[in-house]
Amino acid sequence: MEQRVSVITLGVGDLARAVRFYEALGWHAANDWAAQDVAFYETSGGAVFALWGRGELTQDSGVVDSGGWGGVTLAYNVRSREEVDAILAEAAAAGATIARPAGETFYGGYSGVFVDPDGHPWEVAHNPHWTIADDGSVSI
Amino acid sequence: MEQRVSVITLGVGDLARAVRFYEALGWHAANDWAAQDVAFYETSGGAVFALWGRGELTQDSGVVDSGGWGGVTLAYNVRSREEVDAILAEAAAAGATIARPAGETFYGGYSGVFVDPDGHPWEVAHNPHWTIADDGSVSI
Repeated sequence: MEQRVSVITLGVGDLARAVRFYEALGWHAANDWAAQDVAFYETSGGAVFALWGRGELTQDSGVVDSGGWGGVTLAYNVRSREEVDAILAEAAAAGATIARPAGETFYGGYSGVFVDPDGHPWEVAHNPHWTIADDGSVSI
Repeated sequence: MEQRVSVITLGVGDLARAVRFYEALGWHAANDWAAQDVAFYETSGGAVFALWGRGELTQDSGVVDSGGWGGVTLAYNVRSREEVDAILAEAAAAGATIARPAGETFYGGYSGVFVDPDGHPWEVAHNPHWTIADDGSVSI
């Protein structure tokens, strides 16, 4: 198994609402999501980010849905502390809940967490020890 | 917000067990995970895949843990049906549960799902409509 992730799918309760939320953050689906009932986003790293009905994803994954958060958090790393503040404000304006306001982290960085309308958390982080290339890729 | 994901963190109950599982699939941590109590993997797409204690991730994310699956599924896309079968067999041998055996999909592809020792599902899929570049990146 090569060391890569092809698709990250988030289960959502209302696809149109979820698409509007990510649209407000500047994300554009690559497909006719309304007709296909699933939204696919090509990310700069070559992975696909997807939004799909949570019930359909549950069935397709062969799992039992706990109904809440299940141990997966995404992060969006940025190049400055100011950018952390700006992204959290942008997400809140788009309808996200701020689960952890921006602040210092134990590793000398600065981060906060927003939770999307379907309960999926995104940490927005500036880690001075990690390098972010122009294309957004992260080097540890 | 640029259209990218920097880090995908899976909460785990036993970090050493989780590292052994992904090691058996051929994944190698980029850091001294035992000392740092978190394992980071650089993926070919420039995102980081991480394993961290689920309790710590819960607290850090500012969420309430449902204790089960919470609506996120990862996928690993491959270049042939045979590779789907091979990866599922490899995962099962490493200790995964097969949640959905490999079979035809409604979109004309072929896929199955394994669940890692901490309950995180991975779909292993061959989608003939998607192109996988040499570096593993996916184009829709």
